[in-house]
Amino acid sequence: MITLSLIGIGTGNVDHVTLAAVRALNEADVILLPRKGEAKSDLLDLRRVLCEELLDKAASTRIVEFDLPTRDGERPYLNAVDEWHDAIASVWAELMDKHLPNGGRVGMLVWGDPSLYDSSLRIAKRLTDSGRAVEVNVIPGITSLQVLTAEHRIPLNALAGAVHITTGRRLRERGWPEDAATVAVMLDSGGAFTAIKQEGVYIWWGAYLGMEKQCLIEGRLHEVSAQIIERRTMLREAYGWIMDCYLMAREPLL
Amino acid sequence: MITLSLIGIGTGNVDHVTLAAVRALNEADVILLPRKGEAKSDLLDLRRVLCEELLDKAASTRIVEFDLPTRDGERPYLNAVDEWHDAIASVWAELMDKHLPNGGRVGMLVWGDPSLYDSSLRIAKRLTDSGRAVEVNVIPGITSLQVLTAEHRIPLNALAGAVHITTGRRLRERGWPEDAATVAVMLDSGGAFTAIKQEGVYIWWGAYLGMEKQCLIEGRLHEVSAQIIERRTMLREAYGWIMDCYLMAREPLL
Ligand SMILES: C[S@@+](CC[C@H](N)C(=O)[O-])C[C@H]1O[C@@H](n2cnc3c(N)ncnc32)[C@H](O)[C@@H]1O
Ligand SMILES: C[S@@+](CC[C@H](N)C(=O)[O-])C[C@H]1O[C@@H](n2cnc3c(N)ncnc32)[C@H](O)[C@@H]1O
Repeated sequence: MITLSLIGIGTGNVDHVTLAAVRALNEADVILLPRKGEAKSDLLDLRRVLCEELLDKAASTRIVEFDLPTRDGERPYLNAVDEWHDAIASVWAELMDKHLPNGGRVGMLVWGDPSLYDSSLRIAKRLTDSGRAVEVNVIPGITSLQVLTAEHRIPLNALAGAVHITTGRRLRERGWPEDAATVAVMLDSGGAFTAIKQEGVYIWWGAYLGMEKQCLIEGRLHEVSAQIIERRTMLREAYGWIMDCYLMAREPLL
Repeated sequence: MITLSLIGIGTGNVDHVTLAAVRALNEADVILLPRKGEAKSDLLDLRRVLCEELLDKAASTRIVEFDLPTRDGERPYLNAVDEWHDAIASVWAELMDKHLPNGGRVGMLVWGDPSLYDSSLRIAKRLTDSGRAVEVNVIPGITSLQVLTAEHRIPLNALAGAVHITTGRRLRERGWPEDAATVAVMLDSGGAFTAIKQEGVYIWWGAYLGMEKQCLIEGRLHEVSAQIIERRTMLREAYGWIMDCYLMAREPLL
């Protein structure tokens, strides 16, 4: 029997890790660390540092790095993602067979919280669906949206209002969702907010949230829109990768 | 100068507290613990236990309990809330003047995450708006929704889908929001999901999430709807109070 813990680790600030996550790391027999290719090697380093800082000297946890299969960019999005998840599940299964042939505890470090735009749960389900004796365990972690709101010192919701969390792609396609005073956008490849009517909209933007290079911009959307796009391009060039998200509101939040 | 830290503490499981929250508790000169009346005294106890467990013996943190003003249930909701926040802000100010006349660090334990349907940031703003030298600091915490999804082992979003977070009241008034594959509902005084078309909807419900008395129910909405309402009534009678939330999806989540 394998116990697979999906451990939410927050978004780069070791202090955002929970006591439960620290314990799960230390109780794991094996921690699987995916290598995602060069551009985001910062993130692999961050995960390594996190393990180093949080693993007790006495813990017998082994850290196993592996190469993540790459996604087929040519296929339609949902098909490609589906096959990609299949491929990752196979790799996880091989690693479990190899490193824990008699069962044990496997930990996977999940960026932010495992519930939010993350595929680990879907990949893990492939293992259990295929009849493997795997028990999945989820340990919540602080999401990028929570660091965004904490650092800007704002709530996610307007008073008694609804919150819509969406992707850059959907925002572009559908515009401002009905019945939401605030809209949080993730997975935006850049400037999806230019696709909506900017009047009366306020934006709080953040990149590399929780990390040393964290960058925040806020203001009326029509006033800061260009600045955000410019800064984003600059930062991505400087560091080779970027992760950013933002909250927009149509009414005052505080 | 006062530094006011709004410290997200999760929803009742000490293990969900972050390292940053532990540090903030220990660095505070004073922690203000509101008493909210009899019914929810469980929650005050939980906060007390949390302080006991997480404060170092060496920490000089003082814990100050105070009575929270009550809200005027007769007034229209938003007016009553506004005046209630004013009243709470006055109490906070008095307590700061009394216990830290020369400034220092005040910590407030915030249930879940300070960004999500919580009034601490709005109350704190009243202090800074009134010209007080208060610096506000937010420490993210695990929300009830994250414990809900972790315990049910589900994501919050359908693959590449949008998430709508709303209140029981809004769900009743407006039905299923457009363009959201999943809807998370908080602050429901009971059974708001009866107001929507139940066909094809799946629900994951949780009460007292993170606590020992945690209770989970999931299933097709039309099959478990009555069961949830019944269980909720029973639990609320047994314990004198209840906090519950749920996620609903129109498509498979995994
Ligand atoms: C695949 S999703 C994973 C989200 C993660 N599970 C969470 O809880 O935040 C990646 C997206 O999350 C957001 N994100 C993750 N980490 C971030 C960070 N440190 N700063 C800003 N945005 C971040 C970005 O919108 C990015 O496109
Ligand atoms: C005033 S809001 C505070 C939410 C909190 N800030 C958070 O991050 O979860 C209270 C609502 O949160 C949800 N909630 C809070 N704690 C909960 C728990 N332990 N179990 C289930 N629901 C909870 C319920 O929907 C409740 O009506």
